[in-house]
Amino acid sequence: MSSVPSGPASQDDLPARLAQTADAVEAMLEQVLAHEPDAGEIARPARLLAAMRHGALGGGKRLRPFLTVETARLFSVEGRGPLRAGVAVELVHCYSLIHDDLPAMDDDDMRRGRPTVHKAFDEATAILAGDSLLTLAFAVMADPATHASGDVRAALVLGLARASGVGGMAGGQMLDLAAEGRFDGAPRRLDEAAIRQLQAMKTGAILAASVEIGALIGAADADALSALRRYGRALGAAFQVADDILDVEASPEQLGKATAKDQDKGKGTLISALGLDGARRERDRLRDEAIAALAGFGERARILRAAAAFAAARRS
Amino acid sequence: MSSVPSGPASQDDLPARLAQTADAVEAMLEQVLAHEPDAGEIARPARLLAAMRHGALGGGKRLRPFLTVETARLFSVEGRGPLRAGVAVELVHCYSLIHDDLPAMDDDDMRRGRPTVHKAFDEATAILAGDSLLTLAFAVMADPATHASGDVRAALVLGLARASGVGGMAGGQMLDLAAEGRFDGAPRRLDEAAIRQLQAMKTGAILAASVEIGALIGAADADALSALRRYGRALGAAFQVADDILDVEASPEQLGKATAKDQDKGKGTLISALGLDGARRERDRLRDEAIAALAGFGERARILRAAAAFAAARRS
Repeated sequence: MSSVPSGPASQDDLPARLAQTADAVEAMLEQVLAHEPDAGEIARPARLLAAMRHGALGGGKRLRPFLTVETARLFSVEGRGPLRAGVAVELVHCYSLIHDDLPAMDDDDMRRGRPTVHKAFDEATAILAGDSLLTLAFAVMADPATHASGDVRAALVLGLARASGVGGMAGGQMLDLAAEGRFDGAPRRLDEAAIRQLQAMKTGAILAASVEIGALIGAADADALSALRRYGRALGAAFQVADDILDVEASPEQLGKATAKDQDKGKGTLISALGLDGARRERDRLRDEAIAALAGFGERARILRAAAAFAAARRS
Repeated sequence: MSSVPSGPASQDDLPARLAQTADAVEAMLEQVLAHEPDAGEIARPARLLAAMRHGALGGGKRLRPFLTVETARLFSVEGRGPLRAGVAVELVHCYSLIHDDLPAMDDDDMRRGRPTVHKAFDEATAILAGDSLLTLAFAVMADPATHASGDVRAALVLGLARASGVGGMAGGQMLDLAAEGRFDGAPRRLDEAAIRQLQAMKTGAILAASVEIGALIGAADADALSALRRYGRALGAAFQVADDILDVEASPEQLGKATAKDQDKGKGTLISALGLDGARRERDRLRDEAIAALAGFGERARILRAAAAFAAARRS
């Protein structure tokens, strides 16, 4: 793991910052997924906790908490508060992966090169582990350790819930299953507007919320909040197009999961609407839009600019 | 439906109060499960929303929101705030029924005389509907419309999350599946202490939270909060013993679901530890303990006393 630079950051320290935040996220996840029950809990059954830990620990770029932490840092707010808020977002992301992998959903056996939770344990345990990670996310967010102001903590809970539920991530997964033809037997060719809405819900909403939550913790004013929302939405969209392109280009060994599966199933991606070259141009346009939204923040936002480029170029 | 009494309440108006609150809960559920997306949501996919509505609307005694509303009323707090908080608890209860009914869990086809969500829709939709109701619960609780103070709203979210997750309801369902022998093939005969812990987690925690949330909304002082916690825990335990007794005694027609299934599967209930007569005595003892905890509240608490008797005597 890279050492943490102590002097002023350069463009080059995105990898170091990512690694530093990923380590801090892992440590905080260990803390909130400890074996001892929290105040107000009765006990934490060992098998359920093990499944939650399997689904949450030891994996991923931790891009969502990184966005939360770096956005709060724009406003000179650092430390445990933004880290806990980012971990709450990551818990929601991890729950969604566990449930999306279930046999009744995308039926995936592998995730990040390891067996998915229902393969390592069983379906009932995987359902309950996802439920419990989602529930824990809101406990972590609402806890006084996350922010001194109850108004802010309640706003963070509300923002995370709106981005994750029927009108955001879960609704997007539903639209994705419908596009596969799961409910009427025939895969559906979505038009470009429908694909954009599906992706804004399924992956965009929680990435945008990661940024917005950092901005709320940083007490951003209305203009800054609006600019950061534009940044988050464009970054989220760029991330998803990059993911679709990667899925067509990459080998299973590079990804640690099955590839070209989305396309096989007829799922809507922008590649089907714009072609591969068109999708690459759209990815770059969205990346540039995200970067342009940060113009008002000057040099302080260099890490967030690099994060937009990273999200659009991701290779793992 | 009974008309709402306008004069001073008597012991007899528990049924009217229950019916009145159930109507108000239904109306508020209609509001939070509307087709139009909330601010911060992108869209509400029709099939997912229909499944959420199937799982949440038109059924049940609404005992949990009733406890929240009546506990807040002890402190002269009435109206939309406690109702919304009670509806948030009810949304968590409804999500848990949908997920518990899934084929991978208890595999039930009927609930309240209607097909369960995965039968009326499909498994993937039922998983997402449960996820989305759970997520919506926290949005409803955290919304400024629920309470003017952000500190109180954050405390309500935290209390609900702790009672519902790995250390409460979801953990209790896990212990219940384990007691059936789902993970090692052999049903396990739990001792009395283990049965009490399982039930305190699976059903007791959220009933106790329903009361505690009302107390927090009512700004109860430390003594009152402590007494109401004792009330909620004893009521929750009495409710569960009464449910186990009912399951042995009642016909499927009375219940609208399969009966004696829990016992067949070797699940731990206090009947196995204490016998049927012993369980009846324990139910009555717990009911009396709940009522005794309210001694300091005098006449104001008569409805909560009646609710404890109702929970212990329930026939539907």
